[in-house]
Formats: sequence, structure tokens, C-alpha cells
Amino acid sequence: MRGRFISIEGGEAVGKSTQIQLLADWLRGQGHSVEVTREPGGTDSAEAIRSLLLEGGADRWNARSEALLFAAARADHVARRIRPAIDAGGWVISDRFIDSSRAYQGIAGGLGDAAILDLHRFGSGGFLPDCTLLLELPADEAARRATRRDGVASDRIGGRDAAYHEAVAQAFRSFAAAEPARFRLVDASGDAASVHDRIVQAIAHMAA
Amino acid sequence: MRGRFISIEGGEAVGKSTQIQLLADWLRGQGHSVEVTREPGGTDSAEAIRSLLLEGGADRWNARSEALLFAAARADHVARRIRPAIDAGGWVISDRFIDSSRAYQGIAGGLGDAAILDLHRFGSGGFLPDCTLLLELPADEAARRATRRDGVASDRIGGRDAAYHEAVAQAFRSFAAAEPARFRLVDASGDAASVHDRIVQAIAHMAA
Repeated sequence: MRGRFISIEGGEAVGKSTQIQLLADWLRGQGHSVEVTREPGGTDSAEAIRSLLLEGGADRWNARSEALLFAAARADHVARRIRPAIDAGGWVISDRFIDSSRAYQGIAGGLGDAAILDLHRFGSGGFLPDCTLLLELPADEAARRATRRDGVASDRIGGRDAAYHEAVAQAFRSFAAAEPARFRLVDASGDAASVHDRIVQAIAHMAA
Repeated sequence: MRGRFISIEGGEAVGKSTQIQLLADWLRGQGHSVEVTREPGGTDSAEAIRSLLLEGGADRWNARSEALLFAAARADHVARRIRPAIDAGGWVISDRFIDSSRAYQGIAGGLGDAAILDLHRFGSGGFLPDCTLLLELPADEAARRATRRDGVASDRIGGRDAAYHEAVAQAFRSFAAAEPARFRLVDASGDAASVHDRIVQAIAHMAA
């Protein structure tokens, strides 16, 4: 039996890492084999591209090189890790996937959604998650968490300005509206256990 | 006045590096400002991608990741080095350019020429050289030089098998036939000075 592929999307500081661990543990408790991975990265080769993407000055890459590098990393990740795990019957949870490229480089970065999807078709055959969980915070809580993170060093992309991150958030919402069968919106406010409960509800249709 | 962009293409051991230096010196002697560069690479960012592409085991990258990495490097090279130099009136000579991606990844690697050209349109606006010099050796001399190079460590791509390199050579010839206004075929046999003379003849239409 084929496994399932879940991607988790959302802006910075929305709590993705914590929720991924809680979800993985819960799925293991249900008897599933689970792999947790992330983008960019997830394989040795793709992690090498991740280093290029997230290190260096803000202008290290122009937008087009950046989009091509994400697609190159994803092609390796899909071919060598995600597809084999799913074909073997396992579940895979990825911290970000194609929708992050669409939102960050495609919409907020101005390259256009169609161009990013073209690169994904070339690199990974247009492979999509079975379910994408979009974690969302009310604007005031997002601002509070961002402030709390002020002392944390940001990477090349997380460190972009507020207008960029608002464009990203709007893009995610528009993708979810356009593909209601794939996306589940999850309120990420409150304590981690409550958010986890909402996520378990959100994937109930798959875990059955 | 806008400068000129020349790419030099051909298989392994055909003498490209020597001829590029001779041509650059000759053009400088004609009063031109000349930059010599190479692919993959040519900028700090693109050279970092070059290291990923040429180091590691034969299976470090699948064909699609490899093509995306070449396109990412080229987008940086064109935007930050080649175009600015030409716009400033200089001449640029590149050891390999888009036709190598078309021949190696597109034709010999089986991804198709159209897909590689699509990536180039996305990454670099489809930017093409003013002139592409294709250095060619008779089959027996190519074999002799390859043998002489036996002791030289080959990189991930140069080290592929003879059938792959023959497919590359055929692809270059077909590109030249399809774009006679851009390509100049140059017989690369004999001593370096003779080949240089042929190259100077081949670009006479541009240097005037």
C-alpha cells in the first residue's frame, strides 16, 4: 500500500517544527512508518544546495537563480527520498515544499506562479503532496512571535521585510482557496497541544 | 558601443583553453577590452554551483537537478558578468555556454533540447552569444588526445563514457547546422598557432 505525503506550510515562527514532531509521533503511534524531512534539503545533495541558498548576503542570488536552485534541490528530494519512502508504504512529512517556492519566489518574489510550476513539472514531474497543512496565525499573534524572535539570527530568506512576508501569507491563502481538496487551514494560535489536536482533525480523512 | 559575446564549444581535450587565451590576447591587440570566463561558473555564486556540479560521485545529481543547477549558475553569470561587460563595450569569451547544456544534458542526457531552452529562457531570458566557435577534431585525433589524457583526473561529466561523448559531438554539429549565422565550425587539428589563425578568420565578420 502506497504511503502518504504531507507538507506543512506557513510563514516564519508559526510553529511548524514543533507541530511536525508532534504529528510524526502521533502517526507512529497509529502504526505508520514516518519520515520527517524539510526543504530546501532532505537529501545530502539537496542539503548542499540548501547551504548555498540560505547562507551569504541578501543579494547572493538573483530571484531566477534562487528559483532554479530550489527546483534542483526539490528534484533530488522527490526522486531519492520522498517517492521511495511513499512507494514503500511510509508516510513523509516535509517542513515546506512546492507551495513555499510558489509563495516566496513566485508571488512575493515576482517571478509568477506559472513559471514556478513549470520548473516543478520539469524537475519533479509536478509531484504534489496528498495533503498540505497551512498553519496560520492571527496578525497580532504573528507580530508578537516575530518580536520574540528578534534576537534570533534570520537566514537570507526569513530576514526579508514585512511587506514580503505579508505577500507570502496572502499567496498561501490564495493557493489554499484554489485547491481546497489538497489544503487544510490550521489555526496555529494557542498552545502546541491545541494546535496538534487541530492538525489531527485536519488529517483525519487520510489516516482512516 | 555594445561589445560582443563569443562562446567556445567542443568536446573534452579539443584545446579550448589554449585557444581562448590566444584569442583574448589577439583581441586585446586589436584594442578591445576582453574578459575570459567559463561555465559552469564565472561569478563567485556560479563557481559555488560549479563545485557542486563537478565534484562528488557519478550519481551525485540526477539529470534534472543537474540541468537546473547549470541554469541557475548561468542566470547569475549572464546577469552579473556577461551582460554588464558587453553593455560596457567589452568583449567576453566564455569556455562553454548554453550549447553545452543543450548537448550534454539535453541530447546526450536525454532531457530534450526544448526543455533545456525553456530553462534558459526562464533563467537568462534566452540570451545567446553573438558567435559560437565549435572546435572539432577528426575522430582519430580526438581518440589520440583522449588517450594522452588518460592520466588526468576527469570530473563528473568529462568522465562519462564514449557513447555519451559521441552523442555530445553529434548534438553540437546539429546545433551548428540549425543556426549557421551564429556558429562557426573550426578544425581544431594541428598546432595551436594554426588553429588560432582559423579562429581569427572565423570571427573576422565580427571584429571589423
